[in-house]
Amino acid sequence: MAVTERMGTGQGVIGGRMIRHDALDKAGGVLLYASDYFPRGVLVGRVLHAQHPSAHIRRIDKGPALAVPGVVCVLTAEDVPQNEFISGLPGRVSDAGDRRHQAVHQILARDRVRYLGEPVALVAAESEAAAEEALGRIEVDYEPVPGVFDPIEALRPDAPQVHEDGNLLCRWAIRKGDLAAGFAEADVVVENTYRTQFVDHAYLETETGVAWMDEDQVINIRVGTQVLEHYRDVAKALQIPDSKVRIQCTYMGGGFGGKEDVTVEVFLGLLAWKTGRPVRLEYTREESILAHAKRHPFVMRYKTGATRDGRLTALEADLVGDAGAYAYLSVWVVHYITFTATGPYRIPNVWVDGRGVYTNNPIASAMRCFGSLQSNFAYELQMDALARELGVDPLRLREINYLRKGDGISTGDPVRSEVELAEAVRRCQEALETSDPRLEEVGEAPSLRGAQGRSLSKQNRWLTGRGIAASFTPYGRMYWTHDTSQAWVGFEMDGSVVIRAGAPDLGGGQASSLVTIASEVLGVNPVRITVQAADSQLTPLSGTTTATRQLTMSGNAVLKSSLEIRRDLTEAASELLEVSPEEVEVADGRAFVRTFPDRGVDLAEAVQRMAAGGRPLGNLAKWDAPAGEPLDAETGQGRAVNDYTFGAVGAEVVVDTETGEVEVRRMTSCFDVGRAINRTSVEGQMEGGAYMGLGQGLMEELVVQEGVTETPNLETYLLPTALDTPDVDTHILESESGLGPFGAKGIGEPSLTPAATAVALAVIDALGTPIRKLPVTPEQVLAALAFRGESAGRS
Amino acid sequence: MAVTERMGTGQGVIGGRMIRHDALDKAGGVLLYASDYFPRGVLVGRVLHAQHPSAHIRRIDKGPALAVPGVVCVLTAEDVPQNEFISGLPGRVSDAGDRRHQAVHQILARDRVRYLGEPVALVAAESEAAAEEALGRIEVDYEPVPGVFDPIEALRPDAPQVHEDGNLLCRWAIRKGDLAAGFAEADVVVENTYRTQFVDHAYLETETGVAWMDEDQVINIRVGTQVLEHYRDVAKALQIPDSKVRIQCTYMGGGFGGKEDVTVEVFLGLLAWKTGRPVRLEYTREESILAHAKRHPFVMRYKTGATRDGRLTALEADLVGDAGAYAYLSVWVVHYITFTATGPYRIPNVWVDGRGVYTNNPIASAMRCFGSLQSNFAYELQMDALARELGVDPLRLREINYLRKGDGISTGDPVRSEVELAEAVRRCQEALETSDPRLEEVGEAPSLRGAQGRSLSKQNRWLTGRGIAASFTPYGRMYWTHDTSQAWVGFEMDGSVVIRAGAPDLGGGQASSLVTIASEVLGVNPVRITVQAADSQLTPLSGTTTATRQLTMSGNAVLKSSLEIRRDLTEAASELLEVSPEEVEVADGRAFVRTFPDRGVDLAEAVQRMAAGGRPLGNLAKWDAPAGEPLDAETGQGRAVNDYTFGAVGAEVVVDTETGEVEVRRMTSCFDVGRAINRTSVEGQMEGGAYMGLGQGLMEELVVQEGVTETPNLETYLLPTALDTPDVDTHILESESGLGPFGAKGIGEPSLTPAATAVALAVIDALGTPIRKLPVTPEQVLAALAFRGESAGRS
Repeated sequence: MAVTERMGTGQGVIGGRMIRHDALDKAGGVLLYASDYFPRGVLVGRVLHAQHPSAHIRRIDKGPALAVPGVVCVLTAEDVPQNEFISGLPGRVSDAGDRRHQAVHQILARDRVRYLGEPVALVAAESEAAAEEALGRIEVDYEPVPGVFDPIEALRPDAPQVHEDGNLLCRWAIRKGDLAAGFAEADVVVENTYRTQFVDHAYLETETGVAWMDEDQVINIRVGTQVLEHYRDVAKALQIPDSKVRIQCTYMGGGFGGKEDVTVEVFLGLLAWKTGRPVRLEYTREESILAHAKRHPFVMRYKTGATRDGRLTALEADLVGDAGAYAYLSVWVVHYITFTATGPYRIPNVWVDGRGVYTNNPIASAMRCFGSLQSNFAYELQMDALARELGVDPLRLREINYLRKGDGISTGDPVRSEVELAEAVRRCQEALETSDPRLEEVGEAPSLRGAQGRSLSKQNRWLTGRGIAASFTPYGRMYWTHDTSQAWVGFEMDGSVVIRAGAPDLGGGQASSLVTIASEVLGVNPVRITVQAADSQLTPLSGTTTATRQLTMSGNAVLKSSLEIRRDLTEAASELLEVSPEEVEVADGRAFVRTFPDRGVDLAEAVQRMAAGGRPLGNLAKWDAPAGEPLDAETGQGRAVNDYTFGAVGAEVVVDTETGEVEVRRMTSCFDVGRAINRTSVEGQMEGGAYMGLGQGLMEELVVQEGVTETPNLETYLLPTALDTPDVDTHILESESGLGPFGAKGIGEPSLTPAATAVALAVIDALGTPIRKLPVTPEQVLAALAFRGESAGRS
Repeated sequence: MAVTERMGTGQGVIGGRMIRHDALDKAGGVLLYASDYFPRGVLVGRVLHAQHPSAHIRRIDKGPALAVPGVVCVLTAEDVPQNEFISGLPGRVSDAGDRRHQAVHQILARDRVRYLGEPVALVAAESEAAAEEALGRIEVDYEPVPGVFDPIEALRPDAPQVHEDGNLLCRWAIRKGDLAAGFAEADVVVENTYRTQFVDHAYLETETGVAWMDEDQVINIRVGTQVLEHYRDVAKALQIPDSKVRIQCTYMGGGFGGKEDVTVEVFLGLLAWKTGRPVRLEYTREESILAHAKRHPFVMRYKTGATRDGRLTALEADLVGDAGAYAYLSVWVVHYITFTATGPYRIPNVWVDGRGVYTNNPIASAMRCFGSLQSNFAYELQMDALARELGVDPLRLREINYLRKGDGISTGDPVRSEVELAEAVRRCQEALETSDPRLEEVGEAPSLRGAQGRSLSKQNRWLTGRGIAASFTPYGRMYWTHDTSQAWVGFEMDGSVVIRAGAPDLGGGQASSLVTIASEVLGVNPVRITVQAADSQLTPLSGTTTATRQLTMSGNAVLKSSLEIRRDLTEAASELLEVSPEEVEVADGRAFVRTFPDRGVDLAEAVQRMAAGGRPLGNLAKWDAPAGEPLDAETGQGRAVNDYTFGAVGAEVVVDTETGEVEVRRMTSCFDVGRAINRTSVEGQMEGGAYMGLGQGLMEELVVQEGVTETPNLETYLLPTALDTPDVDTHILESESGLGPFGAKGIGEPSLTPAATAVALAVIDALGTPIRKLPVTPEQVLAALAFRGESAGRS
């Protein structure tokens, strides 16, 4: 409220529970997704994926495929004007990351495939059947060659080389304080190795789009993508000017980082350009699982020291991530895990090495949390292990060590916002301890009724446990990227508002939060605000919807633009009302005299006055995040990102000791979001994050054996369903200390970071034995129980 | 050149003869016009026009039309959500013009038609044949009522009333000095009445468009229009939010003011909205002549006084214009003729009354020169008559009286730019006196061989004569409108440039001049610059392409935007080149060190550096014309517009005394354009203006009898053809004193203003008898010859 008053607005939608402007259209099926476009005469596009994880291609014969009736074209590497494709972020980086930060991969494999599923050829045909048949008739002569499928093995000098210049993709280092002195000072030291899994983004909507040439010979691509700027990649691949490609991002059925790298955009561009016809390409679920980049599995060796009174003295972490066959954004994921390796704790002496390694496994790249989920699993389990070693309450141990505003993280950079971790954890604890009447009601379920005690007894098949994990997660891009966003907010003459912003909406309500901000500032009802979003020809570029950056970046741009227009609006209204501009208030579609609210004019009238006076009705604003130099290459010291979202997730589980199955009985989530723009949306993110964490904590895993995916569909790749998920008890803290509009912080990724860990901690709590690997499968639970039994037997 | 140097650019395209960026696409037929769009399933839209100039509608029966197979809908007034339509300019005006400056007309006539051709109903059908048949089957029961067809008669108290509140639409007054004293001081006074005709714009492309609903339920309209902002009018008529209508202006085959008022936009919107299908509507030539607004005929009574030594002392002018049945922009056309009534001459005592009058004739509204062509005919013929009376050379008389920079025009407002009229007239004179070798070569033509003398002799059938008319024409909108334009210029990452501007291109090269300006400033080859033009959803609004304003308004906006980007570009380049930004020059696609041109980088590299440093790649700039209060309502004193383009056109004619036909043997045109952005384009405007003047001077006339057009097609409405038009000898003056970019002034309208007058003066010169009426038809010539013979006989 303080912020709203400071802004001098009277709308009061910020912090409320506004029904999203697009909710009805979504619920009613009116709003179109990428797969809903079927232009007349559209061709079916398909991709041929490699059948081997590591092979040379001796020959490709398209002839038989082209002979299939209805096949319009078959494209291979030779048909792509610029087949070598540079992925990764542009710009300056530290030397450490620089070596291969712009890693090259192929749009279509030419004479070598490096992972199973690598695209080899494209087909466009008049029908699904013809396209399918053509795929089967493209003759690719593979010569399998030895591959490498484990990142640790891949680092051996004699390992098969995925690329010519070695399997080590990147190394990031943090060197802070005096590690040896830190461990010398420690009374206890715990050392463990943690492992996380390949995870699929498993969005509702697979990679999909439609492309066509328009009358200006511009390639139009309607596609679900997190990155509007991929129009440049299409242009580069086709070697045509950037302005000859237009991407229109549709609303998405989820992204989670999986639609951050190029997926089908270039394929669509190529097919439309070559055929001159509209082409539609929709990945099947199997294709999606096969082809798009995954979350990196990490092997994390941790050594942590603390004094008897619980003060952390030193941390050493050696983190090795499996980047798969091509780099994509791996360098930066490794960067993130490296500087988040300490967790939100004050540790004076730190040594972290993060390495990304090529293998012939599926490619890994961005996924929600971008490395900070993996480090959370390790650092929080370390805190748990330390607490056990020290014999203190694990939450108390955390509390002793929480970063506070002004404290330096491992890179030496101070935290600039409030750290409300103690409060967040306290709320989670309280929520888990408060009996939930709903749980009592459903008391019939055996799993709930059985879970009475917290220790294994012969009579009792079920164990319960609780876990709370704390986290810090960056929101916004890296400091060195000089991140910036633009938005263009303008009145129409009828007093309605149009926002133009290049921000793709993944379903997280990116568009809606922009509407809310403009509504607040301009006093216009959200239903009278239109968003023109994410069209590379139509909208100012707002940057990617990644890194939990849009609320901060585009939100601030919309705020800035709206405030500027409001200044002109109140000036115009003040002329009509014959008072000074300072006396004018804007709310509820009217401009009025603050002290005499009845004396006012309709906004449309004020807008027409603006126009008559030559005042601009709109304004293109640019908001720049604080920016500067990258981290020091040798020591990793400096500013990595601008700010973090702090919070915690708690879980209560019931473990079936016979089957090893884990049921999550309760979840709670508490984050300081700085300021909730829309409480319902924030809660939605917190619920979604908790559920995704539940899935990754217990069941989700892309099982890959010798480069071959053994969980190629949703029958084998398990996702939590409604039956697996409890209600999430959400708690919002608002420190108003964030970088975003009205002091907001991002919540998209942060809400997930500690969730899988919380579930794992609860299982550990239930079992009383350590778990070191995600996901906590029944097999792992049974093995842990067996180990515990063995230990008990031995002791 | 001075300006270019001042701007610090090295491209040097300004002032050159750049081949327009779109020339090849136009010449090759690649570029699409409104009539080139045929979406699949498109319906044929047609308009039913009233068959009476003045009638009540008793009843309309759509039934028989709806029964025609293939007819999808028939719409009448009752189907239009907001059928009363307000035309005219928004904003404040003086009281004089205020009374009805927002005049109402109907989108479809409900129970009264006021002119022949007024739209009554709309049809959409599956085929041309069905639409045509449906038109014939709509039963409209008219009851003719008396109309009025002459503006002078319409002012009589007992005249039939076109609208309820009288036939006087507007009155503008100029009162300067002491008129009686001025005439008292005069040694000679001449008094004459001049008449001009209804003129059709006669563009190559008739009013045409196509409309469809898109997937967001936005009505898209692709149409040839000078006013992108008409999307608001469509929304108003349909009573939907402005943001639900999108207009995309296509390139046009001419506009000349005829596509300034709404033509087919609302009809298209209605039909697409009602049918939910794409609809195409293309006026036939007959329909275009029947339905769109015309140039106002004026009756102009002039009384001018001068001293013996040629000094003008007083001018009294009473100007009555025929507005036709509805106001449209008539109020402002009458405004323009009023304040330009004195011509570019210093006259201390002025009394002008300008009146616009309703009749049941075709509607009159904007046409190239917007009233200043009609006043030019009167004031220049007055100067000619005065010169004869005084016995001085008419050009010498003009020269004595030309306005100079700082002199007040009739509104008291000083001229702010250079006045190079003397030089312009001198150049025209020189051009007419210089024998043209081409004329000698074609000496075989009887008309040329015969034209030897300048006096009528019995032996000589042909008379020759020469005329030069001077003019001043406003460029840019009225001062009180607070005119503004926006443009958004941005780099793509590949170093190419995109300009987004809402400026429709009428064929005059509006888009091309924006490209030239950006090319100059950013050092980018025009072929690497794309214009996204005139899309109400896509482009910032740049205002209408009317009033010769786009080069000044959008040109300055593009200049401003480009200069701002260049600052960032040179900064980024200076980092790469390791010199100070001041040492960086940008030209030919490179940024380089001014003193060591070999040391440079490709612009793409500099642009990528901009992006990496978080600098904006683009910029939305707004340029505001000087603006303020309207003219004083009583006296007409104040600033009407910001600046004028001065110049002259000369013509040499041969008159066939037997047939009365006039052949224009030579034309010359000389204008001070401030600065030529593209010399070829400027010359194109000067040639086009001269030819249009030739047509309006000699043959073009919409003949209307009792409200009925007697020249309904191009067989009867005569336009000059290639056979009628000589080459135009063009001369460009560049005072660099204009308001536009690089000191440019507008040339679109000004090039036409004196052209018809020049032809008339040449005929007067040949005949030696006065002409007082446009066009100078063979009948008028023969009548003048007869009168001269008579006079000679009497004397």
